[in-house]
Amino acid sequence: MVMAYDGAVQRLIDAFAALPGIGPKGAQRIAFYLMSTSGDESTRLIDAISDVQEHVTFCEICGNVCEHSPCAICEDQRRDHSVICVVEEPKDVMSVERTREYRGLYHVLGGAINPMANVGPSDLRIAQLLQRLHGDEVQEIIVALNPNIEGEATTAYLSRLISPLGVKVTRLASGLPVGADLEYADEITLSRALAGRQEVS
Amino acid sequence: MVMAYDGAVQRLIDAFAALPGIGPKGAQRIAFYLMSTSGDESTRLIDAISDVQEHVTFCEICGNVCEHSPCAICEDQRRDHSVICVVEEPKDVMSVERTREYRGLYHVLGGAINPMANVGPSDLRIAQLLQRLHGDEVQEIIVALNPNIEGEATTAYLSRLISPLGVKVTRLASGLPVGADLEYADEITLSRALAGRQEVS
Repeated sequence: MVMAYDGAVQRLIDAFAALPGIGPKGAQRIAFYLMSTSGDESTRLIDAISDVQEHVTFCEICGNVCEHSPCAICEDQRRDHSVICVVEEPKDVMSVERTREYRGLYHVLGGAINPMANVGPSDLRIAQLLQRLHGDEVQEIIVALNPNIEGEATTAYLSRLISPLGVKVTRLASGLPVGADLEYADEITLSRALAGRQEVS
Repeated sequence: MVMAYDGAVQRLIDAFAALPGIGPKGAQRIAFYLMSTSGDESTRLIDAISDVQEHVTFCEICGNVCEHSPCAICEDQRRDHSVICVVEEPKDVMSVERTREYRGLYHVLGGAINPMANVGPSDLRIAQLLQRLHGDEVQEIIVALNPNIEGEATTAYLSRLISPLGVKVTRLASGLPVGADLEYADEITLSRALAGRQEVS
């Protein structure tokens, strides 16, 4: 009795199921979708993947993904080169860019310190960050890591490392997300919002 | 200001976001996952997609996906060639196979009659099904379409077409799913379950 698909189909389903956020049912749906589109969609997907494989690299300065290193942001002289926003992943750069509020530079760490997952300071792009602080150009480091245990620990670590160099280290404000309901806020978020309360002007 | 990713990265995200069940955030996550795995995962995915593109075809008899037509199920002489289970899509064949209860053959229609989406009887593999009923081998057609309006209409259509040929046409039982709660059953399902009630033996 046939219980799995024929070889190639099952391998395609398995390949998709190995990607983050795609379960076995979703992978099956995608595989049959690709088979039903007479190859056009498959070819487009193959081209997009191999294109990135061949052309996309990481910026030698900030560590963000780009097609030419240094990246467009690092090269942009209209941006404020005295501020560096430190983020965990390249996708976080895009999140900050979407606010349209930030005009400085970035530095992608490649994660956060996480002893449980064996990620120490030497596994992150911290040395490269310190190197960018030589000279007087950089005045402020905005640490914009994820607000969880690993992000907190890494923020504290960076602050202890960078503050003595005479560079101001700031972090994103903690508090209630806009549109949230006080009733459903967790205690830690609420206590952070209390501690960070601001005068109504 | 950079608001979208550099060309190739954005094209990869768009290509994944075009697949069913993947939204823009999920597509971004997959794209960065592929970029972070130094090409191995990308190559495996490309190989799997092009493999299916090159080697997978549809069975000339039942319409299921397979690597060699006729497929392994149609060729299997240990299966009961007197019963054909009619399903909408190739993935439905796998669902029925997983029950390990069915030993007959299959016929994939390629969908269900849906006037709203411009899918008429001639767009489905109905002529091919009728052709399989020539001769006396086939005794029963089990119609196993999705229990929605399109499935119902197609089931009725097939029954009117096939019954006159002296072939028994049956359909899957409608009723409460195993493990369900009577309280949460919708009225139509419950009335079907009532109408289809069976004597307790």
